[in-house]
Amino acid sequence: MVDILHRIGAVAPAPAAAYEALTKVDALAGWWTEETRGSGDAIGDKLEFRFPTGGFDMEVVELVPDERVVWRVIDGPAEWVGTTIEWELRQDGEYVVVLFAHRGWREPVEFMHHCSTKWASFLLSLKLLVETGAAAPAPRDVRVDNWG
Amino acid sequence: MVDILHRIGAVAPAPAAAYEALTKVDALAGWWTEETRGSGDAIGDKLEFRFPTGGFDMEVVELVPDERVVWRVIDGPAEWVGTTIEWELRQDGEYVVVLFAHRGWREPVEFMHHCSTKWASFLLSLKLLVETGAAAPAPRDVRVDNWG
Repeated sequence: MVDILHRIGAVAPAPAAAYEALTKVDALAGWWTEETRGSGDAIGDKLEFRFPTGGFDMEVVELVPDERVVWRVIDGPAEWVGTTIEWELRQDGEYVVVLFAHRGWREPVEFMHHCSTKWASFLLSLKLLVETGAAAPAPRDVRVDNWG
Repeated sequence: MVDILHRIGAVAPAPAAAYEALTKVDALAGWWTEETRGSGDAIGDKLEFRFPTGGFDMEVVELVPDERVVWRVIDGPAEWVGTTIEWELRQDGEYVVVLFAHRGWREPVEFMHHCSTKWASFLLSLKLLVETGAAAPAPRDVRVDNWG
């Protein structure tokens, strides 16, 4: 099992805006993909994220307000199904620090390399949303390679 | 042992410019850090990368022109010393694809999360250098969190 790990910090007075950006459909659509449906603010909720090339369905499996969010991937590319996506939030001075982990990849395939770089660019979009209220969700996202 | 993995693709007719960006001091200074010294185009060469907050010394341990570069970290933060940084290049249509791995981290510490996101942003700087000739090396790099 191998994991994708990232860390961002957004200048913000408290974790509330970052927690909202991970649990409210409108806010998720503001940094990850404009085509986000479902709901994400109760355990058992389902979120559907769609991109020009496909998408992912997640089930919300853990929620601690302003501290922790965990999703399990229930549909999407075979490499993603069954993996978990964990978000840890905490205030550190004037920054909200977000620790990210996409855990449970079975093999470090080339697609995992791609997803790691794409996650970083989407996390920088999340940082921008929290700091400024506007960011770069798909289909206006940063292209990292020939796969997107 | 845990690894940081990434994948970028730069629009370019051949891998030569990307290989040069990993082996020539002037080109390394154009995407990673302006304070790059030493040499990187022969096995056994030493490269010194300096940032406002510290730096890394690397020894070149593998070189296959236009295909592969491997560095071993010989000085810098304790978490980095002894790790290896591998670059694989290949042409895929109109893109030069770069597979990146920073291997041999002993533990998935919070600093590793930070470095993973920083690597992604520097790799996007490398992509920009190959595509346009100008990029965003330190100290003009993208800030990802409260650590830099």
